[in-house]
Amino acid sequence: MTTPRFRSEEVPLDAFYDDLSTAHLQPLWELHGLITPTPRVRAVPYRWRADDLAKLGRRAGELVPVDRGGDRRVLAMSNPGLDGAPFISGTLWAAVQYLQPQESAPAHRHTPAALRFVLDGHGVYTQVDGDAVGMSRGDLVLTPSWTFHEHHNPGDVPMMWLDILDLPVVAALDAVFFEPGPAEEASYSQAPRSTAELRWGAGAGLAPADTGGLPQHSPLLVYRWKHTDAALDALLEAQQTTDVVLRFRDPARGGDVMPTMRCEMRRLLPGAVTTTDRQTGTRVSAVLDGHGVVELGGTSFDLAAGDVFVVPSWCTHRLRAQSRMDVFTTSDSPVLEALGLHRREQVAA
Amino acid sequence: MTTPRFRSEEVPLDAFYDDLSTAHLQPLWELHGLITPTPRVRAVPYRWRADDLAKLGRRAGELVPVDRGGDRRVLAMSNPGLDGAPFISGTLWAAVQYLQPQESAPAHRHTPAALRFVLDGHGVYTQVDGDAVGMSRGDLVLTPSWTFHEHHNPGDVPMMWLDILDLPVVAALDAVFFEPGPAEEASYSQAPRSTAELRWGAGAGLAPADTGGLPQHSPLLVYRWKHTDAALDALLEAQQTTDVVLRFRDPARGGDVMPTMRCEMRRLLPGAVTTTDRQTGTRVSAVLDGHGVVELGGTSFDLAAGDVFVVPSWCTHRLRAQSRMDVFTTSDSPVLEALGLHRREQVAA
Amino acid sequence: MTTPRFRSEEVPLDAFYDDLSTAHLQPLWELHGLITPTPRVRAVPYRWRADDLAKLGRRAGELVPVDRGGDRRVLAMSNPGLDGAPFISGTLWAAVQYLQPQESAPAHRHTPAALRFVLDGHGVYTQVDGDAVGMSRGDLVLTPSWTFHEHHNPGDVPMMWLDILDLPVVAALDAVFFEPGPAEEASYSQAPRSTAELRWGAGAGLAPADTGGLPQHSPLLVYRWKHTDAALDALLEAQQTTDVVLRFRDPARGGDVMPTMRCEMRRLLPGAVTTTDRQTGTRVSAVLDGHGVVELGGTSFDLAAGDVFVVPSWCTHRLRAQSRMDVFTTSDSPVLEALGLHRREQVAA
Amino acid sequence: MTTPRFRSEEVPLDAFYDDLSTAHLQPLWELHGLITPTPRVRAVPYRWRADDLAKLGRRAGELVPVDRGGDRRVLAMSNPGLDGAPFISGTLWAAVQYLQPQESAPAHRHTPAALRFVLDGHGVYTQVDGDAVGMSRGDLVLTPSWTFHEHHNPGDVPMMWLDILDLPVVAALDAVFFEPGPAEEASYSQAPRSTAELRWGAGAGLAPADTGGLPQHSPLLVYRWKHTDAALDALLEAQQTTDVVLRFRDPARGGDVMPTMRCEMRRLLPGAVTTTDRQTGTRVSAVLDGHGVVELGGTSFDLAAGDVFVVPSWCTHRLRAQSRMDVFTTSDSPVLEALGLHRREQVAA
Repeated sequence: MTTPRFRSEEVPLDAFYDDLSTAHLQPLWELHGLITPTPRVRAVPYRWRADDLAKLGRRAGELVPVDRGGDRRVLAMSNPGLDGAPFISGTLWAAVQYLQPQESAPAHRHTPAALRFVLDGHGVYTQVDGDAVGMSRGDLVLTPSWTFHEHHNPGDVPMMWLDILDLPVVAALDAVFFEPGPAEEASYSQAPRSTAELRWGAGAGLAPADTGGLPQHSPLLVYRWKHTDAALDALLEAQQTTDVVLRFRDPARGGDVMPTMRCEMRRLLPGAVTTTDRQTGTRVSAVLDGHGVVELGGTSFDLAAGDVFVVPSWCTHRLRAQSRMDVFTTSDSPVLEALGLHRREQVAA
Repeated sequence: MTTPRFRSEEVPLDAFYDDLSTAHLQPLWELHGLITPTPRVRAVPYRWRADDLAKLGRRAGELVPVDRGGDRRVLAMSNPGLDGAPFISGTLWAAVQYLQPQESAPAHRHTPAALRFVLDGHGVYTQVDGDAVGMSRGDLVLTPSWTFHEHHNPGDVPMMWLDILDLPVVAALDAVFFEPGPAEEASYSQAPRSTAELRWGAGAGLAPADTGGLPQHSPLLVYRWKHTDAALDALLEAQQTTDVVLRFRDPARGGDVMPTMRCEMRRLLPGAVTTTDRQTGTRVSAVLDGHGVVELGGTSFDLAAGDVFVVPSWCTHRLRAQSRMDVFTTSDSPVLEALGLHRREQVAA
Repeated sequence: MTTPRFRSEEVPLDAFYDDLSTAHLQPLWELHGLITPTPRVRAVPYRWRADDLAKLGRRAGELVPVDRGGDRRVLAMSNPGLDGAPFISGTLWAAVQYLQPQESAPAHRHTPAALRFVLDGHGVYTQVDGDAVGMSRGDLVLTPSWTFHEHHNPGDVPMMWLDILDLPVVAALDAVFFEPGPAEEASYSQAPRSTAELRWGAGAGLAPADTGGLPQHSPLLVYRWKHTDAALDALLEAQQTTDVVLRFRDPARGGDVMPTMRCEMRRLLPGAVTTTDRQTGTRVSAVLDGHGVVELGGTSFDLAAGDVFVVPSWCTHRLRAQSRMDVFTTSDSPVLEALGLHRREQVAA
Repeated sequence: MTTPRFRSEEVPLDAFYDDLSTAHLQPLWELHGLITPTPRVRAVPYRWRADDLAKLGRRAGELVPVDRGGDRRVLAMSNPGLDGAPFISGTLWAAVQYLQPQESAPAHRHTPAALRFVLDGHGVYTQVDGDAVGMSRGDLVLTPSWTFHEHHNPGDVPMMWLDILDLPVVAALDAVFFEPGPAEEASYSQAPRSTAELRWGAGAGLAPADTGGLPQHSPLLVYRWKHTDAALDALLEAQQTTDVVLRFRDPARGGDVMPTMRCEMRRLLPGAVTTTDRQTGTRVSAVLDGHGVVELGGTSFDLAAGDVFVVPSWCTHRLRAQSRMDVFTTSDSPVLEALGLHRREQVAA
C-alpha cells in the first residue's frame, strides 16, 4: 500500500510532507498503488491434502487436550500468501477440528458465523442454541452468528470435520464479539433429528404456517447428506448434463444459508470438465468423494477425497473429474452481492 | 347496494335527481349502504358431503363426454348465498373434476390460477407447460396463472379431484384471458417425478444454484402427500401440541405457492379443538382424512373424509376432531395481505 | 355468466341436473362463458364534463345539507355499463365531493382507501389521523385504508374536489369495514404544512433517520401541485420529449402511494400524441389543465380542464393534446401487479 | 493476532508444530486472541481541524500539479492507530481534495464507491457517467461504485471538499477494480441542475413513471444543501426537539444512497446534548456549521466548522452543541446491517 509520492526538482516538498505527517494526513497524488486495475490478492491458490489433515489432526488429538484452558482443537489452514495469518484467504477462515471420544468443546458464541462440513466419520453432536444436531459424513451444519454452540463426542471413535468461518470479514469490519457459555456441562438430546429439522427440514416447500420471528439466517441448521445426494442425482436427471450445482438455501426465504456465506455442492460425472471462470471473493472447496484435477490460475492440483482447496478472488478456476466427484464449496458471494461488488466471468480456457 | 337518498319536504329534489341520472351521476349522501361496519358477505357457510360429490361426479362421468365440445367435466360448488353463481364464495371457485379411464381434458391456459388437491384415487397426469405430474391421494398440484395445462387418465379406473381457482377475483379485476392449447393430442411422460420435482423438490433448502428466471409462483408444481404427511408428524413432534398447521411454500423465495392463493394442511389429533377465529377473505377446506365437526358462524357441520366446506369472510370458524383429522385449506389471504386488507382475530368461544 | 350446458338426444339429463341443483353443484362442461379469451368488461369508456360536474355539484350544495344524517355530499360517477351501480368501473369509485363554506364532513374511517385530487379551488382542510392537510388546486391528498379522515371548509367559498376509492375491489374481497369518528367536532391546525410534509415532504431523498413503524402506504399524505408542476417541467427538460409521465411514490420505500392505487401525472406539450396502448385494470383520469382529445376504444371524447374519464380494462387509449395538457391518472395497477395479472401492450394505431 | 499455544512439560510439541507449519496449518487451541469479547479496534478516535485541512490543502495546491502523472490532489486522513495506512479507519477512507482554478482531475472509475461533501466554497463540476453536477457548500455528491467520474474547476478560485470512500472494505474483500477514462478532455455541461436532479430530485415522492433499469445505488447523484437545510428545519418543527437527524435516501427505493455507505445530517440547537451511544462500524463526521464538543471514548474534542472526526467501531459518542450545529456523518452501517453485524446501544453517560 505504498503510494508513489510526487517528486520535484524545483520544489522542496520535504517540509510540506513533514507538516502533513504531523497533521495525520497523507499526500496521495496517485491512486494507482491503492486502487488497482484488478484485485491485488495476497492469498494464493493452494490445496491441502486429506492425508496431511487426517494425520496432523490425529496427532493434535493425541498431544493436546481440549478443556477450559483451550476451547477448541483446531488446525487452521494458513494461506501461504498471507505471511502466517491463520486464514485461508483474506475473507475466510478454514480449519479442521478434531474431537476425541468422550470429549466436549464447550459452549460459546461469537459474531463470526461458522459452518461445519463433515468429510468423514460421524457421532459428534453440535448443539446450537439448545438444539442438538448429530453430524455425519456429507452433512452441512450451521452455527450462525451469535448462536451458542458446543460440540460433544459421546461415541468411542474420534471425529474430525471442516470448519469455515467468515472471521476475517467480521474482523475487518471491527465487529467481533465473543461470549463464553455457562460453565457447567450441557446436557443434550441424542435424537436423530434436531428441532430445526422437524420444523423446517421435512420437505421442499413445507414449513410451519406460524414461523415466529425469523433470524437473519436459515432456520434449518443442518442439511443432511442423504437429501443432498438425492437432490444431486435428481438435478442430473432433470438437466441431462454431466455437471450440476446445488445451492443450500434458507427454506424460509430462499436466500443463502447465512448473510455472509454461500454453500453449494457440485457433482461432476466421470470425465466432466467445467468452464473456466473467475469471480470476486473467495471460494473454499472440499472434495467429499471422487478424484480429479483443479486448475487455479496457472497451477494444477490433483484432488482426492478429503482434499481442501482455496480459490482466491479473481483467480481462474476449472475442474476436471476423473471419477464421479462431489465438491462442496463455501464462498463469501453473499457479501459481494449485497455490496454491489460481485463480478463473475467466463474465461477462454 | 341501494343507498338511502336524502329526502326533504321543502325541497323538490326530483328534477335534480333526474339531471344527475342524465349525467351518469349518483347522489350519495350516506355511505352506510355501501361502506358497512363489517363485511356484508353474501356467501354463506356451507359443507358439501363427500358422498354427494362422489355420486354426482360418477354420474357426470357416465352421462357427459369430455371432448373438444366440452373442455372439462366439472361440477362447481355453488354457494347457496350467491344466487346461482357457480362460485363457492365471492372470491374463489371450487369444483370436483372427473376423468374416465382413457379420457383427456385438453390443454388450455387462462389467467385465473388453479390448484388441484386429490382427495382420493390416483392415476391422472396433469401436464403443466410440458411437465407431466402424476396425481395421487393427498397431492397438491399447481397450475398457475397462464400456464398451459391438460389432464390425462391413462389408467383403467376413473379419478376425481378437487379444483380451486381464483376466478372470481380475476373476473372482478377484469383480467380474465384464455387461450386453447394446440389441437393435437399431447404426448406426455409417465415418469414418477416431474421435472419441477427433480429441480425443486428434492429436499428442504436444496435447489439449483442457477434458478433461471423465476416465475411469479412456486416453481415446484406438486407437493406430494408422502412428504406432507411426514412434515405434519415432524411438526407435531417439534411442537408437542395436538394441532399443527403446515404451509405450502414457494421453495425459491419462501412465500405462498401463488400470488393469489395460500395452501395449508392442518393435522388435529383426536379430541383436539381449535380456537375460534375469523379472518377477512375466503377459506375453502377439504377433509382428507378423519372426522369431526366444524362450527361456522352459528352453524355446526359434521365432517367426514372427502367433505368440502367454505368459511366466508369474517365468519367465525372452529374445528373439533373426533379422530385424527387432516384438513387441507386454500385461502385468498395473499391477496388480502398484499392489499393491506388482511384482518384476523380470535373470538371468545 | 351463463354457461352452455351439454345436451344429448339420447341421454336424459334433466333428473341429473335437478340432483346437482339440490346438492348446490353446477355442471360446467365448458368454461367458455366464464373464462373468456379477453376480459369481458362491463364498464364502458366514458367522459364526464367539467361543466356538468360543477353545475350539479353546486346544486347539490344548495339543496342538500351535510350533517350527521348524511356524512358526505358526494356525486358518484356511475359507469353507463354497470346498470346503475355507483362505480366508475368494476374496481374503482370516483366522485366529486362538495363542501359549502363553514361546513364539515365528519370524521370516519373505512378499509377502502381514498385519494382526493383537487381540480379547482382551495381552502378545505382534510384531517388524516389528526394531521391537517390544506387542499389546493392540483394537490393530491391521501386518506389511506383505515385512517380517520374528515373535511373542513373554514373559508367563505365552496370547494369541490375529486374522490377516488378502491371500494369495489375491497367489496369484492368481502373486506369492507367502517367506523365513525368521535361525535364532537374536531379542532384542527390550519398550518400551511402538515406534519407528514414536515417529516417526509421536504425534498427528494430526504427523510428522518428514525422512521418509526411505517404503515402499508406512503407516510407522505399530500403531494403539492407546486412540486408536481416543477417536477413535470424538470422531466420534460431531462427527457427532451413532448410527453412525460410522473409517478407519485411512497418516499420511504419508493413504491406506489397505496397498495391498491397508482397515481400519475402526465404533461403533454401542444400537439403531442401518445402511442395507443391498453392494459388490464381501470384507469381514471382527470384533466387538470389544457384541452385535447382522448380516443378510448373506437370512441373519441374531446377534453377540457376539469373533465374526468374512465379507461376500462383492456380498452385502447390514446391522448392528443391541443394545448399543453396536464392529466392526472389513478389506476388499480398495483393490485394487478401484486397478483401477477398486469398486462400492457402497445397497439398499432 | 498472536494466539497462545498450548505448552506442556511432558509432551514435546516442537516437532509437531514444525510439521504443521510445513503443511501450512496453524494450531489454535484458544480463539481468545482472534475472537475477542468486544471488537479489538486499531483505529482511534481523532479529530482533524478545519484550519490544518485548509492550510495544507492550499499548500498542496501550490506545490503539486494535478495532471496525468497524478490523478488526484488528495490529502488522506490517516488514523493515528493504523500505523501510517492512509485510512481514517479500518473500513473507510476520508480525504480532502483540492482543485485550483482551471484544473481538472481526469475521468476514471473504480469499484470503491465515493461521496463528496462540500464543507466550503463552490464552482467545481463533478461529472458522473456523463452527468455534470455543480458542487456548492453543504451539497452531498455521489460517485457510486464503477461510475466514471471527473472533477473540473472552471472558475477562478480554488475549491476543496471532503471525499469519503469505502476503499478499505472493498480492498479487504479483494474486489478493487480500476479503469482510467478516455484520454481526451471531457466537455461537460455547466447547467445548474444535473440530469439526475431533473429526473429524481424535483420533490419528495415524485419520480418518473418509467425508471428504466435502476442501478444498485441512488439514481439521485446530488443532495443540495438548500433542500437539506429546509428539511432539517421542517424536522425540528415536526418533532419539537433540539436534535434531529435526517437520512439521505435513494428516492427510488428508500434505502441508503449506496450499498456500503449511509449518509446523515444532524442539526443540534444551541445547548443540545445527545445521548451517549456506540455502534459497530465506523462513523466519519464533518461539522458544516457551528461549534461544540464531541466526546469519543474518554476523550473530548472541541469542534468548529470544517472539522472532521472519526468514531471508531464500538467507541462511545456524545455531541454537545455550543451554537446551532450541523454535522454531516457517513457510516458503513449498511454493510453491517446487510451482514447481520449491526449493533447499537445507549450507554449511561
